[in-house]
Parts: sequence; structure tokens; C-alpha cells
Amino acid sequence: MTYGYVEEKDALVKRLHRIEGQVRGIERMVEDERYCIDIVTQVGAVRAALRRVEEEILRDHVAHCVDHAIKSGNRADQRRKVAELMDVMGRAGR
Amino acid sequence: MTYGYVEEKDALVKRLHRIEGQVRGIERMVEDERYCIDIVTQVGAVRAALRRVEEEILRDHVAHCVDHAIKSGNRADQRRKVAELMDVMGRAGR
Amino acid sequence: MTYGYVEEKDALVKRLHRIEGQVRGIERMVEDERYCIDIVTQVGAVRAALRRVEEEILRDHVAHCVDHAIKSGNRADQRRKVAELMDVMGRAGR
Amino acid sequence: MTYGYVEEKDALVKRLHRIEGQVRGIERMVEDERYCIDIVTQVGAVRAALRRVEEEILRDHVAHCVDHAIKSGNRADQRRKVAELMDVMGRAGR
Repeated sequence: MTYGYVEEKDALVKRLHRIEGQVRGIERMVEDERYCIDIVTQVGAVRAALRRVEEEILRDHVAHCVDHAIKSGNRADQRRKVAELMDVMGRAGR
Repeated sequence: MTYGYVEEKDALVKRLHRIEGQVRGIERMVEDERYCIDIVTQVGAVRAALRRVEEEILRDHVAHCVDHAIKSGNRADQRRKVAELMDVMGRAGR
Repeated sequence: MTYGYVEEKDALVKRLHRIEGQVRGIERMVEDERYCIDIVTQVGAVRAALRRVEEEILRDHVAHCVDHAIKSGNRADQRRKVAELMDVMGRAGR
Repeated sequence: MTYGYVEEKDALVKRLHRIEGQVRGIERMVEDERYCIDIVTQVGAVRAALRRVEEEILRDHVAHCVDHAIKSGNRADQRRKVAELMDVMGRAGR
């Protein structure tokens, strides 16, 4: 089976590429000795963009991979999927 | 005056450059159709690294810029600095 | 079936009762006009205690109710359980 | 000087009293062996209510106590106030 996000793989790569560019922009802000608060604000914007990426991949993951495990009836796989979700979402709260 | 982080500007740029590379690595993971949870875990690691950058710049900001405003005795500047801090830290919690 | 937390129901009630007492303590701090930061610190401590309660109930929930749905082989129930988890954990991050 | 929240002390006590009642309600939910997810949802609601209390006290604190330190021109007090804010807000993010 293929993973949920693969359907929109190109859009996701493009989005991450834009985030990569934002990080490079912050490097330039540091080199240009811009005001601390402006830099922190930009870093916060990148973190928020990454969080949205995470949420979207997780949503697709549940709709595809977790659902695939449910359809399969494979209990070991179902348990693994739930444990992974709990683990990754527990960390995402931080 | 110069901003607090400027003293360690090179180290900070290097750190952000490494984060930029991590984002590029995630793009490649997506292109290679790696497992969703592994991608989300990597995105979470980048968010954590950015958060540490934010905390460090803020700490330097308080030690330098805010302290500069305190020494100056300029009340308008002191008020602006406190309002900025509240604003940026209120957002950082998310 | 009974829910996971029920096994330690008494301990959980006792814990919540202590948290209830902490909230009452904060009311008294406000009435006594205690220093703002001390009050905020106490409110933060109560929030942290509640978060630990949440985490524990969720852990028991996964070990019992979600596992029960897995064992049952009931797909509709499994889907409901995963959707609930995503929903509740998405909110818990805040 | 009096603290910022004191102006609305009665409203604040009333609000905390309601939160105390909500915690008592959760104890009853546990005693009645209600569904885990419903309990977790309620705990999350109480945490959100406490967070709003925190934000309001902090806002008043900045408008009164911190501003008082700014007006006083007392640098030691100003530094203490900023350090306290950073400390308490750093924790509030969690």
C-alpha cells in the first residue's frame, strides 16, 4: 500500500521547499543583524507552518494507514498504529 | 547598540543552516515516500530545534536589549519592550 | 466492559479532590490579595496536575477501551475510537 | 501599591469558584464511571479555563505591577519583574 500523503506528494514537497526558504531567510536576518524580536517572530511563523504540515500528514495517515490496519483485521498492526499515534501526538503537544 | 545574539552570530547562522538542511532532508523523505510517522517525527525534531533557537535569542534579548532599556531609564522604550515580550511569548506557547 | 481508569477509581477521585482543594487555595490567595506571580504560579501547577490526570486516563483508555475495540474486530468501533483519540489529543496539545 | 487583579477580585474569586465546581463535577464523573473520553474532555475544559485566568492576571500584572516598576525608575525592581515574567511565561507555554 502507499501512504496517505503520497497523493499530494508534489504539493507537500513544494510546501516544505518554501519552509526551507523561510529558514534561509532567517539566516540572512541574523547575518544582517536584524532586531531580535523580528527574528523570533519569523522563527515562530516557521514553527507554525511545520505544525500544519505535521497535522496534515497525520490526518492522511489516519485516513489511509490506520484505516488500512483496521480493514486488514490485523490486531498486532492495529496495536502498533495506535501506539505510534499516541507517541507522536504526545510529542506534538510540545 | 547591538543586539544580544550578535555575539554568537556565526554559531546561530550555522545552527539555522543545519536546520535548513534538516528541512531539505524531510523533502527528500517525502519524495522517497517514506513512512508517515517517520516524517512527522522528523518535522517534530525540526520544530523542537527552532524552539530552542527562539528561547536562546529571547534570553539574549532580555539580557541585552531589555536591560539596555532599563539602564536608559526611557519609560516609553521600557513599556514597548515589555509589550513585545508578552506578545512574542504568548505566541511561543503554541 | 468497564473503563480502564475504573481499576484505580478511588486513587483518581482522591487526586482530583486534592486538585479541587488547590483551586480553593487559589481563591483564598486572591481574597488575601497575594502577589500576582505567586497566584499565576499556583494556577500553572494546577494545570500541570490536570494534564497528568488527562495523560493517565488516556493511557488507560488505550490499554482498555481501544484494545477492546481491536479485539472485538468491530471496524466501526475501531474507527470511532481512533477519531476520538485524534480529536482529544489534538486539543490536549493546547 | 495594590495588584492589578484586585480591582476585579470578586469576579476572579467567583470564576475560580466555578472552576472548583467543575473539578468536583469531574470527581463525580469518575465515581459514576463515565466514559474516559468524556472525562478527558472535561479536564481539558478546566485546563483551558485556568489558562484564561492566568492570561488575565498576567495582563493586569503587566499593566499595574510592571508599569509601577517602570514608573518608579527602580532598576533592580524592573529587572526582577522582567525575570519573573520570562520565568512564568516560559512555564505557561507547557
